[in-house]
Amino acid sequence: MNKIDSHHYFDWAATAPFDTTILEESLQESFNTWGNPSSIYKIGTSAKVALNDAREQIAKTLNVNSNSLFFTSGGTESDHIPLLSILSRYTTGTILVSSIEHSAILAQCEVLKRKGFNVVKIKPDANGIIQVQSVLEKITDDTLFITVMAVNNETGAIQPVEKIAKEVFELTKQKRKPFFHVDGVQALGKIPFNLSETFIDSMAFSSHKICGPRGIGLLYLKSPEKIESFLVGGGQEKNIRSGTENVFGAIAFSKCIKKFAINSQNENTQERFVAQQNYTNAFIQKLSTLKNCHIIPKNRLDEKFSNEHFSPWVLQAAFEKIPGQVMVRALDEKGFSISTGSACSSKKKSRPILEAMNVPPNLQEVAVRFSFGHSTTLKDMDELFLAVKEVCDLFC
Amino acid sequence: MNKIDSHHYFDWAATAPFDTTILEESLQESFNTWGNPSSIYKIGTSAKVALNDAREQIAKTLNVNSNSLFFTSGGTESDHIPLLSILSRYTTGTILVSSIEHSAILAQCEVLKRKGFNVVKIKPDANGIIQVQSVLEKITDDTLFITVMAVNNETGAIQPVEKIAKEVFELTKQKRKPFFHVDGVQALGKIPFNLSETFIDSMAFSSHKICGPRGIGLLYLKSPEKIESFLVGGGQEKNIRSGTENVFGAIAFSKCIKKFAINSQNENTQERFVAQQNYTNAFIQKLSTLKNCHIIPKNRLDEKFSNEHFSPWVLQAAFEKIPGQVMVRALDEKGFSISTGSACSSKKKSRPILEAMNVPPNLQEVAVRFSFGHSTTLKDMDELFLAVKEVCDLFC
Repeated sequence: MNKIDSHHYFDWAATAPFDTTILEESLQESFNTWGNPSSIYKIGTSAKVALNDAREQIAKTLNVNSNSLFFTSGGTESDHIPLLSILSRYTTGTILVSSIEHSAILAQCEVLKRKGFNVVKIKPDANGIIQVQSVLEKITDDTLFITVMAVNNETGAIQPVEKIAKEVFELTKQKRKPFFHVDGVQALGKIPFNLSETFIDSMAFSSHKICGPRGIGLLYLKSPEKIESFLVGGGQEKNIRSGTENVFGAIAFSKCIKKFAINSQNENTQERFVAQQNYTNAFIQKLSTLKNCHIIPKNRLDEKFSNEHFSPWVLQAAFEKIPGQVMVRALDEKGFSISTGSACSSKKKSRPILEAMNVPPNLQEVAVRFSFGHSTTLKDMDELFLAVKEVCDLFC
Repeated sequence: MNKIDSHHYFDWAATAPFDTTILEESLQESFNTWGNPSSIYKIGTSAKVALNDAREQIAKTLNVNSNSLFFTSGGTESDHIPLLSILSRYTTGTILVSSIEHSAILAQCEVLKRKGFNVVKIKPDANGIIQVQSVLEKITDDTLFITVMAVNNETGAIQPVEKIAKEVFELTKQKRKPFFHVDGVQALGKIPFNLSETFIDSMAFSSHKICGPRGIGLLYLKSPEKIESFLVGGGQEKNIRSGTENVFGAIAFSKCIKKFAINSQNENTQERFVAQQNYTNAFIQKLSTLKNCHIIPKNRLDEKFSNEHFSPWVLQAAFEKIPGQVMVRALDEKGFSISTGSACSSKKKSRPILEAMNVPPNLQEVAVRFSFGHSTTLKDMDELFLAVKEVCDLFC
């Protein structure tokens, strides 16, 4: 039984309630493997074994070689490592970045721009999806790096990253192939994906988005030798990420991945995923009965389209006449937690992702995000709908 | 009662055994404040309160303003943030770095060198101490950044960082004052220091060196506005360190700092510090009775000098005819954990810090580090001495 009550929590895309059992168990396990994993005596080597067991477990679940997995301090750092590798290797060149990325990527690209790189943004279509062709047509001979996220954190739009990676590979055969990075923070434990046969070069993951602790992330690198870390130090994680290894974090993260990753080995999560598609579709239909509500993008009203192109765990909707922050606060008063955009931008008023989708400014201001998790029930979502309806009735 | 038995553990400078009570309590507290601290609803703001309470507690213990404290992912990142800030602001200039720094600083300086900065190393004297004059004489008009650690991780040599910072300030009055950074990882909870009236611009700390969890560090910034973070993203920690805040880590670290920091508010730790000076001096005297033993530097045999210039928690010694790794493994067989140098360099054979001190190569190869912690007893150290003596008897 989880010690955290998250039944009226609908901001799972910001952070997930801890799996308290996993965290407690992992902490106790780390008390038995407390040495520095880089030390050569027994207490050190047993810590190293625990760290690598966690890595092997994740490798098995994600169906990749454990040599391609590196522990980091979180999603932001997992995004920075491949991106900054180009700063180690080059002084100039072009970076293609989708304009709907998380700020861990977008803001860091701005830094690289100031250091001499050419940063070109790729706009999504009106559904918030980056089209393969939009990437391909921007590729030039000096394109070093391309970065497109797997699932957008504000709209839930699933990006065709596999397809983009494959097409980039085909297009740049016999040329310099750009490095293709994917921010997978909203994909792990949220949508099925398979890294075993992919043209994706790197993928970033975060533990706390799937009920694990903060301070631990994961970086998948198809060919680690392609990375020259810009951030260096003690040389841990085969020089990919320096800093004493967080064994507690690694153990807990591996348990969360095993429990929540959606793949063919895990019937529970596959069933749960399909159930959430139904819950979210039902929620969308209910919201659409409210006169002032606009589902963003409106194509999510088409269930087939929504199931194919959107994560069922994230939904963006706008409520005319109710500023986003007002809706957030009004629902908070009723005990429900939602957000306007990402937690990272909770204090900012601009909505660059909606802007990139050409959502009209008046709707951007009144848009909010609902996001769900494995313990969300249909009843919870019905209660959320009633609370949203009450706020709408009050303001309209 | 701590669940970890560390009585024969003598590698505290690499990592400290967890304070299991603090970690367990902090984990439970974090279950009540599990929201994303950047979110604006109650579960988020209560997490923010917990995070800032931890910060206030640390500020009180360290006698600084809480606005000068920033949580990071660890010591390495706390070193990188000020150092990389110069890359945000400049394209060239000189960095003065002591040649006995931890690799988190030294290796990152090499990266900056490749990016166009002039990196000048400052050698220590034969005691492994950076003399004030050695720094001052290297300062030129284009010196942007100076970095000297507080306590060396291999020898325990206390560096006169306060004095250097003050003299640098005096020398560069009416000129561009170089930023003065101190790696304080081996100082916090180890030696008394006072940040309330200092010319030091920044200081890096790590939680796991004082029995806290991995994945959390701290950065003191006297004037945060002097820093322009090179690593960016969601803008957490007032843009100094992006990434979702690790509330569990912050709570646990603050409790460890409160318990272990050595200052006038904390009689226990002050007494414990003096006791360790006596234990270590006694241990040094005993070791010096072994024919093949060389204390490094030999001036540590002078108790007054040792107490004044060395951390009592770290000791370097060389044993003729017994390669460092052999001593480490032989003691490990007997159940005692020590190391050759830092854990980060446990697989490398070179000893750059000893090299910088002009320790002869034949002694570098046979040098090892003993390091102690708050739960180390005189009896533990006597047992360690007997074990070392047995190894010496066997090999000599």
